[in-house]
Amino acid sequence: MAEELSTILDQAEAAVEARDTALVLKLCKDLQPADLADLYEDVEAEERSYLTDVLGAEAFTDVMAEIPATLVEETLDHFEPEEQRGILESIPDDDRVDILQDIRAEKRQDFIELLDEKQQDSTRTLLRYGEETAGGRMTTQIGKILAHMTVKEAIDHLRTELESTETLARIFVVDEEGKLIGKIRLRDLAFNPWDTPIRDIFTLEENTILATADQEEAANMLARYDMLLLPVVDESNRLLGVITADDAIEILEEESTEDIEKGAGISGEASEESYLNTAIATHFKRRFGWLVALALLAIASGVVMYHFEEDLAAIPLLMIFLPMVVAAGGNTGGQASTMVIRAMALGEIDEGETSRVAWKELRLGISLGSLLGICMAIIAIFVVPSFNPKVSPNFNFTTFGIAVAVAVAAQVTTSTLIGSLLPIGARRIKLDPAVIAAPAITTIVDASGMVIYFIVASRMLGL
Amino acid sequence: MAEELSTILDQAEAAVEARDTALVLKLCKDLQPADLADLYEDVEAEERSYLTDVLGAEAFTDVMAEIPATLVEETLDHFEPEEQRGILESIPDDDRVDILQDIRAEKRQDFIELLDEKQQDSTRTLLRYGEETAGGRMTTQIGKILAHMTVKEAIDHLRTELESTETLARIFVVDEEGKLIGKIRLRDLAFNPWDTPIRDIFTLEENTILATADQEEAANMLARYDMLLLPVVDESNRLLGVITADDAIEILEEESTEDIEKGAGISGEASEESYLNTAIATHFKRRFGWLVALALLAIASGVVMYHFEEDLAAIPLLMIFLPMVVAAGGNTGGQASTMVIRAMALGEIDEGETSRVAWKELRLGISLGSLLGICMAIIAIFVVPSFNPKVSPNFNFTTFGIAVAVAVAAQVTTSTLIGSLLPIGARRIKLDPAVIAAPAITTIVDASGMVIYFIVASRMLGL
Repeated sequence: MAEELSTILDQAEAAVEARDTALVLKLCKDLQPADLADLYEDVEAEERSYLTDVLGAEAFTDVMAEIPATLVEETLDHFEPEEQRGILESIPDDDRVDILQDIRAEKRQDFIELLDEKQQDSTRTLLRYGEETAGGRMTTQIGKILAHMTVKEAIDHLRTELESTETLARIFVVDEEGKLIGKIRLRDLAFNPWDTPIRDIFTLEENTILATADQEEAANMLARYDMLLLPVVDESNRLLGVITADDAIEILEEESTEDIEKGAGISGEASEESYLNTAIATHFKRRFGWLVALALLAIASGVVMYHFEEDLAAIPLLMIFLPMVVAAGGNTGGQASTMVIRAMALGEIDEGETSRVAWKELRLGISLGSLLGICMAIIAIFVVPSFNPKVSPNFNFTTFGIAVAVAVAAQVTTSTLIGSLLPIGARRIKLDPAVIAAPAITTIVDASGMVIYFIVASRMLGL
Repeated sequence: MAEELSTILDQAEAAVEARDTALVLKLCKDLQPADLADLYEDVEAEERSYLTDVLGAEAFTDVMAEIPATLVEETLDHFEPEEQRGILESIPDDDRVDILQDIRAEKRQDFIELLDEKQQDSTRTLLRYGEETAGGRMTTQIGKILAHMTVKEAIDHLRTELESTETLARIFVVDEEGKLIGKIRLRDLAFNPWDTPIRDIFTLEENTILATADQEEAANMLARYDMLLLPVVDESNRLLGVITADDAIEILEEESTEDIEKGAGISGEASEESYLNTAIATHFKRRFGWLVALALLAIASGVVMYHFEEDLAAIPLLMIFLPMVVAAGGNTGGQASTMVIRAMALGEIDEGETSRVAWKELRLGISLGSLLGICMAIIAIFVVPSFNPKVSPNFNFTTFGIAVAVAVAAQVTTSTLIGSLLPIGARRIKLDPAVIAAPAITTIVDASGMVIYFIVASRMLGL
């Protein structure tokens, strides 16, 4: 957010708190819907009610699509039924459906009945698609023409529907049954002789998506093929609507937030509210479950350590490198899983390529582990003795260093393999790879690190 | 990627390996540029040379913009100068600049000189902007008209430039000096009487970005305001070009990949090559530096543990919960930093709001820590004794459980605070918050966890 905008928002917030209506109106005049929504979200409930009064229903029409789900119903309730109808009728159909999805089912019906009959029908149809599907995200307000029209007929036809069309960046060519057969750009209409048949100038549309497909698939398709609009069709290839590039941006941002959060052991859907406006109870709920699960796993490491208690008592110096061996596994495992999960999300790793991934990570694990092991051995052999630790007189620091190196190499190699293969395995059994990510893998390889370290040390140092 | 596409790509790869030219041509005919680029990237160097021969320069024109940076020069070298000129002249100017940026400076000049004079000029201008700026990403091939034109004059003007214009989704209105004053939609030209003055029908453009601004700022602006095109201007508000929504998608995907990787301790720029095609040496280089740094930090934890060696020898049972206390800090710290970093990336936390974040995370840390502590105390008091661990006869499991609970609560609270404040501090001293993320924080709070655990235990259990 630019400096200037953030200053205006701060001033506006202060003006709202002071109920300085003249100043509020002056500042809000320059704000765009997304900015107004930010201001609205950042103030207290009472001040939100004041803002709806001061700005009125018309200003809120474009703001409605930008406010978080939790505030939608409360905001609509501030307005009279006539104003509610005005708001709901004026916003694009995909935003209207988003808003209605955020309203409790028992009240949703009342709002739908405010609309005119044609809008009621299209809204009910869209509501039938799941919120996370291509159909649930599309707009139906698009330009459609028939192949047998001429350029002039097409322009006349589009003119009558102009008001209700969200975008004319692409105009779609359909047959009598509404099946998609191609696309044309508005410029091809504007710059061609009026008697040219559409059939002679349209191009085929190669990419479409089923209305029931996942919204993320639609967004990835727009991204992969650099498209501004992706047509949404039903099983018979009838054109239902389009998903626009700005929808794709929104979808990709939501999904990437969710993946990042899952990677950190935060569950549940990413809230539409901002960080500061999300209730502590919500934050708590999304984090606590994983914490307990990970804590129980960590106790397993504790049990392993307790099991080797006599080794530690015999050579306390082992403690110096214990956290390092354990952490090295967690870190390399986390790196490997992150790379693999990201590659899978971008569609770079197919089902059959597991062995190539494993082979690559095995070689990487061996090289990373060996070099890290050598670094650590140097510390163990040359640095640690200079601190005069308490050891038995015949303690051999060189053997100790080699044991550390071997343990590091073994731990890093296994962790890298585990980190890369677990997400692939998760996907195979239809689990979301992202939930298997960093913290879970870290905790799993912690225990294996302890076992490896103590076994290597006890063999080599003769415990 | 859809099943079907992935099958075609596999078949095409096999056909390329078998040098079955007829089959290769047949399969590639149905592939779009992004798919062809995937195929091209997935085969060996020798087979890439074969593919350029078989498909020819024309087919590669659109593919060039989709292949990874490392393959660009090699690919162009497969073609004759005449073909190279054909490829470079036919692609949009923003893609051309991207491609030239991927070529070594000493050879870049030769390629630029293949172009006609007008393209040479515009290419040199664009190359002057950094690769990661709005100017480096924009296309200059846009529709521009003057305010004093009529609709007919505007259409005639656009018609002459039609060939070189990438998008007419928005047409920009400039004054005699080229300064941006507004925008108009092609539909407003197509559906208005021909003598309407542009001045009467254009709308103001509220959002612009400086050519020198960061590309991520441009992408965030497109995302925030649901725009399909963002005009790029110089300091005097002269219109230089536009960034399109599909550029924004690409920028956001690159940045989010980099942020995710930094969070896992992977440094350097996310490679344009896919995971499987990136050389092991590259993977190694991007991961090793952080591993060593984190290993050295982990040795600090080892030194702490070694320091409390006598406490562990006195009550080995402490080991059972030691990894859990440490991990709980790492996990909560990681969760907190992830939430805060993400909120900062989405522009939800301003400079001045540090204290609100700290206060929120402090309360969260106390609640998460207390409840997790109680769970762990229950295990310590009721579960652990049933395994008959070796303890002195007067060992009090209840005191032990309470000590564990207090340590967990203290560790989780401090780690949550550290995890949320470190990214904010990093940003203040102009460090990228993402590099301070999960693994670094985990390793830092590991040591504090050991100190807290041993101090609490020794006080409460009277060591």
